[in-house]
Amino acid sequence: MKFNFTDLLTDHVSQERLARLISALAEIGKSDGDGVNRQALTPQDVAARKFLAEVAAGCGCEVYRDEAANVFFRRAGTTDGPPVVTGSHIDSQPTGGKFDGAYGVCAGLEMMAALNDAGVVTELPLEVAIWTNEEGCRFAPGSMGSAAFVQPELLSTFRESADSTGLRFGEALDDAANALQFIPLLPLNRPFSAFVEAHIEQGPVLEREGKTLGVVSGIQGVRWFRISVRGQTSHAGTTPREFRKDAVLVATELVQQAYAAANESDADLRLTVGRFEVSPGATNTIADGVTFTIDLRHPSDDVLDDFEARFRSWTRRQSACSISLEELMRHKPTPFSEKVRATVAEAAEQCGEPWRELLSGAFHDSMYLAEHCPTGMLFIPSKDGLSHHPAELSAPDELAWGAKALTLAMYRLANPSLDVAGQ
Amino acid sequence: MKFNFTDLLTDHVSQERLARLISALAEIGKSDGDGVNRQALTPQDVAARKFLAEVAAGCGCEVYRDEAANVFFRRAGTTDGPPVVTGSHIDSQPTGGKFDGAYGVCAGLEMMAALNDAGVVTELPLEVAIWTNEEGCRFAPGSMGSAAFVQPELLSTFRESADSTGLRFGEALDDAANALQFIPLLPLNRPFSAFVEAHIEQGPVLEREGKTLGVVSGIQGVRWFRISVRGQTSHAGTTPREFRKDAVLVATELVQQAYAAANESDADLRLTVGRFEVSPGATNTIADGVTFTIDLRHPSDDVLDDFEARFRSWTRRQSACSISLEELMRHKPTPFSEKVRATVAEAAEQCGEPWRELLSGAFHDSMYLAEHCPTGMLFIPSKDGLSHHPAELSAPDELAWGAKALTLAMYRLANPSLDVAGQ
Repeated sequence: MKFNFTDLLTDHVSQERLARLISALAEIGKSDGDGVNRQALTPQDVAARKFLAEVAAGCGCEVYRDEAANVFFRRAGTTDGPPVVTGSHIDSQPTGGKFDGAYGVCAGLEMMAALNDAGVVTELPLEVAIWTNEEGCRFAPGSMGSAAFVQPELLSTFRESADSTGLRFGEALDDAANALQFIPLLPLNRPFSAFVEAHIEQGPVLEREGKTLGVVSGIQGVRWFRISVRGQTSHAGTTPREFRKDAVLVATELVQQAYAAANESDADLRLTVGRFEVSPGATNTIADGVTFTIDLRHPSDDVLDDFEARFRSWTRRQSACSISLEELMRHKPTPFSEKVRATVAEAAEQCGEPWRELLSGAFHDSMYLAEHCPTGMLFIPSKDGLSHHPAELSAPDELAWGAKALTLAMYRLANPSLDVAGQ
Repeated sequence: MKFNFTDLLTDHVSQERLARLISALAEIGKSDGDGVNRQALTPQDVAARKFLAEVAAGCGCEVYRDEAANVFFRRAGTTDGPPVVTGSHIDSQPTGGKFDGAYGVCAGLEMMAALNDAGVVTELPLEVAIWTNEEGCRFAPGSMGSAAFVQPELLSTFRESADSTGLRFGEALDDAANALQFIPLLPLNRPFSAFVEAHIEQGPVLEREGKTLGVVSGIQGVRWFRISVRGQTSHAGTTPREFRKDAVLVATELVQQAYAAANESDADLRLTVGRFEVSPGATNTIADGVTFTIDLRHPSDDVLDDFEARFRSWTRRQSACSISLEELMRHKPTPFSEKVRATVAEAAEQCGEPWRELLSGAFHDSMYLAEHCPTGMLFIPSKDGLSHHPAELSAPDELAWGAKALTLAMYRLANPSLDVAGQ
């Protein structure tokens, strides 16, 4: 049989109910205008978990949590096999919007409600996960919840990470556990049959090409570097050119060289210098220090290796200043499971909406889940490619199409006997 | 006669007494190690004025102040003509040293003491001035005291300038006036016969060339600009190259272009980009804003005009970002009085130490005094060209040679009958 339930399932996904849930969630931590400031493990984040747990319980789900404050809503299957899991995160950037992360959790809950309304039970249990601290803006690094779920030995290190007030992640976790103690605990790293994350694209590709759905083939590799240039302060007016050790002169030359090389490299190479800090930072003082960052991304480790080697060689050349380079982060490209990609693609096709395959330029919790079980992602368009911004927006029908495709894909993955039946 | 008193005068300048005074003054506002933090009109600055007033009174000087909290120590002449004035400032940068400004005041007081010891009286009165807020780091702009002395109408605007705590310069002036009310007031803009300022070079030229003394021919012209580049934030990972409006990319290109053009320009053109601020300043966010400053200096207005016109044309060209340019400050080159230059040069020659003529790259109170009366400056070497730094240093014998040359030049200027006598 060929997804006999397609219309039954998609007809029960409600655009209005989904929009209401997203709006209600956005009230918790609401900031200026349409913005959301709901950073990880703040009172707002904990309150949002309680609110969603009530919604899930109203859908007949069991609610669980783990030691990383990840929360799970489970809808029982006809068997007790490892669950098929969807979800995302509900923490936001300080100046975030309503959709980044929150959409994936709300779409999962809409799936639960649609399956209830359709009277459909799956073979394997279904779960919606809320992963803790994906954004990493309050406690670095990001994606602590999904990373600790997959590699529980990371948790003790994460617990030491402090926010800007000095409060440690471990203390915030303990406070959250206290507030959520009514929810039973499950172990970290328990088996999943598959994981599918719905998310806004956070880029302009789907909108530009008029696609409603994006089937994500993987997450590109990323490397972060911090480059420090050390010169010597001296007076802007009194120091002849040949005596200057001007860190701004040397650092801007490196930045321009990197941009020029990226521009001549593969079109998918993405280079960003997002921080550039000058000391002492006075108009009439030659700077003795610049620290800048490089964010480098590409789907191929070979391309990244090549660019990194060239850039490192430039930092070693003769200069009036000393230059040092420190690697801050490195993630290999993450290809997603072929089976999950194919299932999500088939669900998109069944929706009858235009879709394309694309790579994720951003990190997601799926980067860690891919080490744990067959994993994939589904994108919907972001207006103007905006995210981490109060104006981030996906249209109501796009939100609903994403939930429909998600429901179809999750249904398929949670019914392994459909494969045996030759589909 | 040809400075008959040369040896008499220089023999009475005491290297030890001068060093003791500089050290004692540096105790007021002393910071880490050898540093001084004595910002304008702080309690430390006011305490330093009281201390120096006691020293001056001990030398038999009358003490005066004016409405800009400038303080003057007067040694009577045989006539009551307009005084010949020396001096500088005693306020410092937050991380300043012992010599910038303070040296000129201390050298002036050493001159007073040496003339007393030599039993010499000049025709015109001599004064040592302490000019208020030369540094401009607490209240902008700098050189308020000398500027207001020369153009009293500026004072009401200066009074509105606020420090980082919101306290206005006018309130700080009133507090200082209260603390110094025992000192009689003199009017702003009263006539001077001449002004000579002794100062550390704050640059490397004298030390590099083994010169003990520098006769300053003028102050180079300076222009400050603030350039703002506006792009659009977007995600470093998800935004393809052709969609980017990266303010760092555009700003670093402008900075590099400016440095390259300066390098090909006249060797005396000095270009400094000392501030470069990025918003929002996150590693994985394309920057929507960069603001950077340009400090441009040269002895010729024509060279400055030419460079400015070229730079302005670059800010108007097509770009992914919008670029705006704002002029923050403009000072024409200040040539010093031929007569004062010749007098200071003769004094340097009489000292028998190696000297050269040079331009001042930095501003000084003399820039304003030059509009008021025949003005000149005398430099002594700065070790490694350092200033605005706890390690700024001039050797004890250099400090003394500067005070000797200053004493000879002031003596000459305060005895106009020596000119009539055909010298």
